[in-house]
Amino acid sequence: MRVSIAGASSTKFGKHPESSARELLTDACLGALEDAGMSPDEIDELRVGNFMGELTDDQGHMGVMAADYLGTAGVSATRTEIACASSGWAFRNACTAVEAGVADVALVAGVEMMHATGIQRLTDALADAADNEYENSCGLTFPGIFGLIARDYMDEFDVTREQLAEVTVKNRANGVRNPISQYQEEVTVEEVLEARPIAPPVSLLDSCPITDGASAVVLVSPEYADEEGVEASAVVVGSGASTDTLALQDRASLSRTTAAERAAKRAYENADVTPDDIDVAEVHDCFTIAEALAVESLRFCERGEGARFTAEGETAPGGSIPVNTSGGLIAKGHPVGATGAAQIVELTKQLEGSHPTQVEDAEVAVAHNVGGSGASTTVHVLEAQSRGGS
Amino acid sequence: MRVSIAGASSTKFGKHPESSARELLTDACLGALEDAGMSPDEIDELRVGNFMGELTDDQGHMGVMAADYLGTAGVSATRTEIACASSGWAFRNACTAVEAGVADVALVAGVEMMHATGIQRLTDALADAADNEYENSCGLTFPGIFGLIARDYMDEFDVTREQLAEVTVKNRANGVRNPISQYQEEVTVEEVLEARPIAPPVSLLDSCPITDGASAVVLVSPEYADEEGVEASAVVVGSGASTDTLALQDRASLSRTTAAERAAKRAYENADVTPDDIDVAEVHDCFTIAEALAVESLRFCERGEGARFTAEGETAPGGSIPVNTSGGLIAKGHPVGATGAAQIVELTKQLEGSHPTQVEDAEVAVAHNVGGSGASTTVHVLEAQSRGGS
Repeated sequence: MRVSIAGASSTKFGKHPESSARELLTDACLGALEDAGMSPDEIDELRVGNFMGELTDDQGHMGVMAADYLGTAGVSATRTEIACASSGWAFRNACTAVEAGVADVALVAGVEMMHATGIQRLTDALADAADNEYENSCGLTFPGIFGLIARDYMDEFDVTREQLAEVTVKNRANGVRNPISQYQEEVTVEEVLEARPIAPPVSLLDSCPITDGASAVVLVSPEYADEEGVEASAVVVGSGASTDTLALQDRASLSRTTAAERAAKRAYENADVTPDDIDVAEVHDCFTIAEALAVESLRFCERGEGARFTAEGETAPGGSIPVNTSGGLIAKGHPVGATGAAQIVELTKQLEGSHPTQVEDAEVAVAHNVGGSGASTTVHVLEAQSRGGS
Repeated sequence: MRVSIAGASSTKFGKHPESSARELLTDACLGALEDAGMSPDEIDELRVGNFMGELTDDQGHMGVMAADYLGTAGVSATRTEIACASSGWAFRNACTAVEAGVADVALVAGVEMMHATGIQRLTDALADAADNEYENSCGLTFPGIFGLIARDYMDEFDVTREQLAEVTVKNRANGVRNPISQYQEEVTVEEVLEARPIAPPVSLLDSCPITDGASAVVLVSPEYADEEGVEASAVVVGSGASTDTLALQDRASLSRTTAAERAAKRAYENADVTPDDIDVAEVHDCFTIAEALAVESLRFCERGEGARFTAEGETAPGGSIPVNTSGGLIAKGHPVGATGAAQIVELTKQLEGSHPTQVEDAEVAVAHNVGGSGASTTVHVLEAQSRGGS
């Protein structure tokens, strides 16, 4: 695959009580277009990732809404929903459309408005990403699901809460340097362990916050970039996606994310890279355990070693493979439908050399976006525009 | 475009209090695969159209759910939401994927479960397809929207309620012959006019019912069909899609569906056909006025003539262009996320020569699926397998 990223932008992540989804979505889209030096009338195809607009905003049909508010009604515009991987999957669909020649210019955006919905109703809404008949309806929501996964993982691989807590410590430190990050304060391992228990061993600080936010990315074909003089910021060179059973109970192991393993394998093969080639990664750390599993699925370390790998500093800035230099979901925030696109925004900055937590000589980057308890995952490999050429 | 339809199937449309979305969805998918003589493990890509599963079933992530329940977890699986055009757009995305060589075999399915949700909550849920900030939140739901459209149309083009009612009379008569149809009784013009007013001039019998149901279609590349000995039932030869403003108030005319006009133009051009080539059509008659506008957008008659064209019998079986031989949304029913796929199922039967209201020598067919008040529309042109060859 070879699809150019011409522009990328995120709104500030956090609380936006003054805004509605259409405003944040439009802001992110206009930001990405401005970054690309392009106008809305160049868009052939618009793809919006959103998980639960019907529940939080009484609003479906958000693909059309985005086209309408960009003044491009008439364009092909859809919404992709695949839980918390909605905009990772929208990004994949848009890359495929450009790669296949169906569109020269595709705008991918993601949005989620979460704060205006009360926490109980919101937790219930988020649980629609799980299996309603076997999980949600029995009272199992996502903190509980990841609590079960973490307990299983700690037992099987002899991992401590302290080791898992290092994910939060690292990501909160990275978040301090990221101006869009929801959290701007560091925390210690002790603070993570002593935070309010949510679903033991998961504490409040093992968990990502609820977040309002939007992100957008402009994709163009390399040919269009050449012809129109569009300067590409980075290039998408590999895409992989896979699925697993919807319910956790149907999997051979609670703490093995096979959809992510398959998605990573496919993306690496598509990009013709190995894990050793990757310089920086944004992964789906909705809970600390999720980042430990992500670095294993991406094959940065062996299975069962993800938490220890993190505690040893390998994924910190300056480590062998810096992960979530943005602050990740845990610090930057997790507006669920926007997260996949937000990862691409952050990695584009890394490959341009303009990230606030810049990885030196970053040339190859990977994004890992997960839906539900790991039932769906997309993995994308990006390269610096300077690498490989066209 | 040249993408083969290998199999197609719908569940019975109507009330399914004994079932959940996953059961109807799985039934439709297995039906389509059986019709194709294929097995789930041949699927490369799965696309599910669903509008409001979060509101009616507390269930998002339905792409994965379908893959899981077909025993194909691991496959690429997404949900497309674009209001009542969700599976029309999912079908378009799947056709594009096969045409582009991204997938050899794509399964497209649509589902909606509407009866278990009370009518007031359901009407509010459906209104999420409109503009929440300017329409739904002010009390304007879809019967009201189409009431406004019908009033504007009747005034501008001197059309009577009797002429619009002929849409229902024709479609209910067609529905009697369709075993999956929700309604199985004919009605008269007088009964439509005397039915309970919903949003005048729209009566209960000018409106489609609420419906549970699912439909699925198996798409294969012509090359895969040849190599694997898969017998195609029909061929998709053209796809067009377009959008309009989300809110009715922002359009130049209430009763002009420009998204549909553009989608039809693009689909006809893509298929290299003219309206005169079309032998049979399935259109989006959510209300009688919607079918009148559809036949105009598809250019079967002039603007403003759609209702008179219908009242003159031109769209009845035996007329110049039979429309909604299935019974349409008004008789067959309208499980909103399934409707786009259901239209393809019906037209596939027409092109095979096996439809209960068969159009003689039907060789070219068109499907027209609308989201919201016309904010999004997909149009697809299908040909009989015998026509044109490969």
